[in-house]
Amino acid sequence: TKMKLPGQEEFEASSAHENAPAGELDSGLGPGPSPDGPSDTDSREVGVPKDPLLFIQLNELLGWPQALEWRETGRWVLFEEKLEVGAGRWSIPHVPTVALPSLQKLRSLLAEGLVLLDCPAQSLLELVEQVTRAESLSPELRGQLQALLLQKPQHYIQTTGTRPCWGSTHRRKPSYDEEAPLKEQHQNPLRQRLPPGAEAGTVLAGELGFLAQPLGAFVRLRDPVVLGLLTEVPLPSRFFCLLLGPPMLAKGYHEMGRAAAVLLSDPQFQWSVRRANNLHDLLAALDTFLEEVTVLPPGRWDPTARIPPPKCLPCEHKRLLSQLREVRGLAAPHRIQAEDRHRHGPHAPSPELQRTGRLFGGLVQDVRRKASWYPSDFLDALHPQCFSAVLYIYLATITNAITFGGLLGDATNGAQGVLESFLGTAVAGAAFCLMAGQPLTILSSTGPVLVFERLLFSFSRDYSLDYLPFRLWVGIWVATFCLVLVATEASVLVRYFTRFTEEGFCALISLIFIYDAVGKMLNLAHAYPIQRPGSPAYGCLCQYASPGGNESQWTRTRPKDGDDILIMVRKVLSDFSSVLAILLGCGLDAFLGLATPKLMVPREFKPTLPGRGWLVSPFGANPWWLSVAAALPALLLSILIFMDQQITAVVLNRVEYRLQKGAGFHLDLFCVAMLMLLTSVLGLPWYVSATIISLAHMDSLRRESRACAPGQPPRFLGIREQRLTGLVVFILTGVSIFLAPVLKFIPMPVLYGIFLYMGVAALSSIQFMKRVQLLLMPAKHQPDLLLLRHVPLSRVHLFTAIQLSCLGLLWTIKSTPAAIIFPLMLLGLVGVRKSLEWVFSPQELLWLDELMPEEERSNPEKGLETEHPFSGSDMEDSELMYQPKAPEINISVN
Amino acid sequence: TKMKLPGQEEFEASSAHENAPAGELDSGLGPGPSPDGPSDTDSREVGVPKDPLLFIQLNELLGWPQALEWRETGRWVLFEEKLEVGAGRWSIPHVPTVALPSLQKLRSLLAEGLVLLDCPAQSLLELVEQVTRAESLSPELRGQLQALLLQKPQHYIQTTGTRPCWGSTHRRKPSYDEEAPLKEQHQNPLRQRLPPGAEAGTVLAGELGFLAQPLGAFVRLRDPVVLGLLTEVPLPSRFFCLLLGPPMLAKGYHEMGRAAAVLLSDPQFQWSVRRANNLHDLLAALDTFLEEVTVLPPGRWDPTARIPPPKCLPCEHKRLLSQLREVRGLAAPHRIQAEDRHRHGPHAPSPELQRTGRLFGGLVQDVRRKASWYPSDFLDALHPQCFSAVLYIYLATITNAITFGGLLGDATNGAQGVLESFLGTAVAGAAFCLMAGQPLTILSSTGPVLVFERLLFSFSRDYSLDYLPFRLWVGIWVATFCLVLVATEASVLVRYFTRFTEEGFCALISLIFIYDAVGKMLNLAHAYPIQRPGSPAYGCLCQYASPGGNESQWTRTRPKDGDDILIMVRKVLSDFSSVLAILLGCGLDAFLGLATPKLMVPREFKPTLPGRGWLVSPFGANPWWLSVAAALPALLLSILIFMDQQITAVVLNRVEYRLQKGAGFHLDLFCVAMLMLLTSVLGLPWYVSATIISLAHMDSLRRESRACAPGQPPRFLGIREQRLTGLVVFILTGVSIFLAPVLKFIPMPVLYGIFLYMGVAALSSIQFMKRVQLLLMPAKHQPDLLLLRHVPLSRVHLFTAIQLSCLGLLWTIKSTPAAIIFPLMLLGLVGVRKSLEWVFSPQELLWLDELMPEEERSNPEKGLETEHPFSGSDMEDSELMYQPKAPEINISVN
Repeated sequence: TKMKLPGQEEFEASSAHENAPAGELDSGLGPGPSPDGPSDTDSREVGVPKDPLLFIQLNELLGWPQALEWRETGRWVLFEEKLEVGAGRWSIPHVPTVALPSLQKLRSLLAEGLVLLDCPAQSLLELVEQVTRAESLSPELRGQLQALLLQKPQHYIQTTGTRPCWGSTHRRKPSYDEEAPLKEQHQNPLRQRLPPGAEAGTVLAGELGFLAQPLGAFVRLRDPVVLGLLTEVPLPSRFFCLLLGPPMLAKGYHEMGRAAAVLLSDPQFQWSVRRANNLHDLLAALDTFLEEVTVLPPGRWDPTARIPPPKCLPCEHKRLLSQLREVRGLAAPHRIQAEDRHRHGPHAPSPELQRTGRLFGGLVQDVRRKASWYPSDFLDALHPQCFSAVLYIYLATITNAITFGGLLGDATNGAQGVLESFLGTAVAGAAFCLMAGQPLTILSSTGPVLVFERLLFSFSRDYSLDYLPFRLWVGIWVATFCLVLVATEASVLVRYFTRFTEEGFCALISLIFIYDAVGKMLNLAHAYPIQRPGSPAYGCLCQYASPGGNESQWTRTRPKDGDDILIMVRKVLSDFSSVLAILLGCGLDAFLGLATPKLMVPREFKPTLPGRGWLVSPFGANPWWLSVAAALPALLLSILIFMDQQITAVVLNRVEYRLQKGAGFHLDLFCVAMLMLLTSVLGLPWYVSATIISLAHMDSLRRESRACAPGQPPRFLGIREQRLTGLVVFILTGVSIFLAPVLKFIPMPVLYGIFLYMGVAALSSIQFMKRVQLLLMPAKHQPDLLLLRHVPLSRVHLFTAIQLSCLGLLWTIKSTPAAIIFPLMLLGLVGVRKSLEWVFSPQELLWLDELMPEEERSNPEKGLETEHPFSGSDMEDSELMYQPKAPEINISVN
Repeated sequence: TKMKLPGQEEFEASSAHENAPAGELDSGLGPGPSPDGPSDTDSREVGVPKDPLLFIQLNELLGWPQALEWRETGRWVLFEEKLEVGAGRWSIPHVPTVALPSLQKLRSLLAEGLVLLDCPAQSLLELVEQVTRAESLSPELRGQLQALLLQKPQHYIQTTGTRPCWGSTHRRKPSYDEEAPLKEQHQNPLRQRLPPGAEAGTVLAGELGFLAQPLGAFVRLRDPVVLGLLTEVPLPSRFFCLLLGPPMLAKGYHEMGRAAAVLLSDPQFQWSVRRANNLHDLLAALDTFLEEVTVLPPGRWDPTARIPPPKCLPCEHKRLLSQLREVRGLAAPHRIQAEDRHRHGPHAPSPELQRTGRLFGGLVQDVRRKASWYPSDFLDALHPQCFSAVLYIYLATITNAITFGGLLGDATNGAQGVLESFLGTAVAGAAFCLMAGQPLTILSSTGPVLVFERLLFSFSRDYSLDYLPFRLWVGIWVATFCLVLVATEASVLVRYFTRFTEEGFCALISLIFIYDAVGKMLNLAHAYPIQRPGSPAYGCLCQYASPGGNESQWTRTRPKDGDDILIMVRKVLSDFSSVLAILLGCGLDAFLGLATPKLMVPREFKPTLPGRGWLVSPFGANPWWLSVAAALPALLLSILIFMDQQITAVVLNRVEYRLQKGAGFHLDLFCVAMLMLLTSVLGLPWYVSATIISLAHMDSLRRESRACAPGQPPRFLGIREQRLTGLVVFILTGVSIFLAPVLKFIPMPVLYGIFLYMGVAALSSIQFMKRVQLLLMPAKHQPDLLLLRHVPLSRVHLFTAIQLSCLGLLWTIKSTPAAIIFPLMLLGLVGVRKSLEWVFSPQELLWLDELMPEEERSNPEKGLETEHPFSGSDMEDSELMYQPKAPEINISVN
């Protein structure tokens, strides 16, 4: 007698092609075609046609007996919005909660009432006639009822800046030919947030004194039709539910109406009721709903409290599964979960990391794969967002160029300098953007490379070597080693870089950023004691030195709050928030007339080291055998470059960023090797991918859905993958060499502020830091992390402590004379992680980190099966555990 | 057929004496006697005897078929705690949620099963025999079942610092005579958190393969008895519920067991089931529970998400009311709500503010009322907490004395100074603590009085008057006017000081605090350019000047986080957090060897102004008529003193602080008048009650319950009302004049840090500031304040704007030559508030502020009845709206 389960056929259909990610099924706006334009790739993922989105509205009959009128008091798309009558606004969207008796009363009212499925009505008038004809009503009553149902309801349409639209002017005017309400209805801003094809459902509920007994009707229209001004948004209506009756206590009809609306807003009930053939099917769908509801006990939860929308909605896929399991006795749910895990896991074996077994096979494949995307890499950049991204990343890049250039000049006694930094960044960056596998990457002289170069210089000084020629040979060797790594497809080893390695590396880089920014700032305070102009006495108000930096940081972190006053302008403003912060900092600086140090941009185009040309001579004053001996430091540097480059590449190519054009690990490394050669020959700094700036680049290019239901966060659609923004950034960087007159107004503290912000943001968003905080927190105050539900606290602390000591060791080595072996230590992180398998169980590592490839390959489900002999109850976490990661790019490594 | 409603008789009983606040009924630990010691005043509020608290534990049968064992997997007091098997810890307490089908399955299992009410069993053995005898089981099955039920369950007892107590050692040993498990059971830290008299309920659930059909049993023991090691805490068991059956899908028995436990943890179900006579009553109680549950729709809420405990539990009183309403058709719920409002409202007509109509009638009553408490005012101070309060307030007081003394010396050109400030504070403060109506008040020279004194001095300088004699006459007149105010019982007018006035005044004082602290700090940076000792080059690292201040602030705001590592030491540490912050600041200062300015304490005991004695001559060089003319500024100062004193008194005597010994508005003002006379004669600063320090004093003396259920915040019990802490503080302040050698090690930035913290804390905790933030926030991002649900946003903004402009006006006037009329403007605030009644409706003012007395008196319920013609749906806010305010003392005015 049970009808076919909702979605069962889709499920069976979609099971056929395994590659459709569950992401689409999870997305809240599930039903309804994707509203995201032609380039939206979601469409190819939709296995089956979807039902349209349903907008549900509750119109209540108020004012009995003198001033009967319909008023919209609630609306639902994903969540409930209630009209705050006193405040005249829609409430914050919240999870709808209903009292159980209301649902039961609704059920019995529907069971006794009128159910019209596939009603052919073409207008509200026809619909009202249909609904009232079928009832056993007296003609007089029928007339009254029809007049009442045709009465225009009062909607509260929240237009920006104006007073609410309902009110005394439109009251009690049942004519439908007025222009004003129609205009209002069409101008409703909610309309833009609903995808095309959306349909409406209306619930009419209320007390009607002249009725002797309750009147319930449920109508499904055969063809959806706009029912005049019945709904606040001019959508074609599909469902119509009428719940009227004699007055009863405790707002019975209001609650019943809400129950009906909540029911209609449930995707599975919608599915069922769209396909229901008779009353029995309708009630069966209601019963299925009741079987799935969660119950909150009355004494422990205030029923009037509003629950804010959850961060991610429960997955319909899973709901379906649990129903199937119950019906069919599907006994192995964890098998499906394991499959999900494999599909969602960041280490899903991607085609880029499959070893071909041929020399340069990976490189060839990368080139072949990327070539097909090449034209689109320029066409996809035609969007205003890219302009803002260019500005943002340009500023970050020149800040980086200035800072690292300055540091490098300092470290190498002028062998390199700011001019070389600018030139090198421009040349290397632009070349990489044109050729690379992942053109979103921004090249930069990163902290580890800087550290290594500093060591190399002091080594050559100690042994009275000619630095640049020595460095040239190191570069040649590094390029050679990297080519070997490309040829042997060594990049597939990145699968061993688990979160442990990534986070250790990222924490180190972040600390270098913060250390440098704060150190620079303190040095400035030393070097530039600031006097307020006009102050007679000499005073040192060093606090005035920081507003620039702090300001930019503050504006960066809270752009959403501050700018929101201007709607639609908002998005543009928030895109430019960092530029604004810089301009604000500059303006403040100029306004206060502070003697802050400004950005120093070189004025003449020639190498910083006096007397050298642009090409480095191959031997200089060095003995010939040094060109061979350079292979030793080059080996260490190669490891460093490989680690730095590939960790960044792994991070940038994460599954959750939904990149469509794929990665190019081998090609990227090849480009880095070639550029290593070029920069060594020209005596420019060395470059690899910079994690943080590249992530900021991706973040500034993220695409989000604009149409989303109230209460639903905008959906992440992907990244604008193209080569143009990066290319323009580096062309601008090159041009900047001649822009000295303009750039020199930028105070350095503002730039350091951006730097500091980047470092802090990266450090604070990695899971490792969360665990460090746990170390200091008593168990009672700890957040309810999934991790802590599954791993004993002492084991979590042990893992964190090991990671901390690794970081401490790295930092120490970086700061001591032994720093030359620092790259080896980085590689050592992978070894440490591997050896942790003796200390921690696979289950613990699964929660604390990820599994390394071997285990996955040899016993793919061991980790999930052997967890604990009595772990049956852990299945309830599956929903959260296998939820695809929030599609959000933190400026972070994880 | 319906049994009497749970709590109905109590409700009827408690309705009889109206003064019992609903607070007791609201408190989560409702059932069970109060565990708060002999001086707990709650006991007199409890109208009816309470049922004992119930601790519920779920033991699950796991390991079928090889290794059957009982294991505790969940426990409930107020909220649910789940055993995290993998992590080996109890989960964070959360609101229990159950799937509806589990509850329904439980109902049918109980309906068919065995229900033993008032079972006379005296031990687990007897109980097990009773449960198994009544069943139609084969003898063999019965034997197996009995053995199984007698098997010792595995408990996870979370003792601090050690590994979990269950595990392989105690497994499968059904003997009950072992010492270890008994010891564990008795050492369970949970036991200390449960009040004496608590009872236990155990639910046993699981799958048992050899059963052919489900087995359900529910037992209520006649006499609660400790059932061996059945429960993790050695409590006498009252309820026992057994749910066993053949294996079924989807963890059926686990969920059913949870449903039974959640049901038992519901206070009303408990009430009913304690009084149930038969199965029918039991099922009726279950049905009543079902009628009250709230339902979360499956598609919009992940059933596995854990809901954190709400800040305040729903009020049982209200639950009862809604049931009564439904049964009896109680049609006027808002009447009861209005009564509630009157009872809970901060302007409930308290006896202190009733006009007697006799000259000095209020004063006489105050003295009479306070006299009876006088001995206890010293005896109640015998608690270690008072020691910490003394230290904290002492430091705040001398900081205040130093700062205001310094400012005053600066403003009056040395007519007063730090020595006068110390002496005056000591004398006036101690005298006030001995005599006053509200001895928790800390006297201080507050911002407004300082401003006035500065004005008075510049006036007398401009007209070449002899300042101190002129000031003496002002003081004499002020004392006279204040006496008149006492005689005419003017203090009853404080009822017109609504939140609008209070918050305006508080914001002003807070701004003065912040402005002074920051200004002082900047001045310090000016005056003390700091050199790092040993640094060869002169550098100005002014950032080093602030760590002291910042440090103290940081430690103050986050004491809970930082100190929590040491359990039980915690409370002591957090009591001393400010002292620790100061010591830390001093230590850091000493460690870094910074040349920070230190606290300057006078070394000699003589007036600051050279050549004057301790007594001010009545005329000096002034003409005689000046003594009469002084009446004019004295009038203004009287208004200021009255406002400042009484607003503080109103704030300190709030209902939510649960003061037992009552207020003494008239007596306080009388004391201030007398001290005004004394300080004028001696040429010391003038003193009134200081809002912020007094609140900090009360906060450091708050009493909280120690026994509380997991997930429940500690309950606020009241304040240690006594005179001794204040007295000791001021004696110490007096002694401090001779403590210069010790105090001079305290760096000033540390003290300014405390000041800054006080100002910021006070400013950030008033509702006014929340509304100011709303001004800048787009509607979408606004928090879900109740206020915003009921008042249109534009009206909220208008109210805030008016308040802001009042504040701006006050600040401007304070800073201009017209500052002398500043007190009048303060009084003007009351007028502005009164005139707002023309702009805002009473409903709006009720939400934005409070109602002024007239309205309440003339149309007591107008505000609640005329809200909106269609406001029926607003009733659902009643729960939140009439919730008594959280018994928490913010360092704030509201």
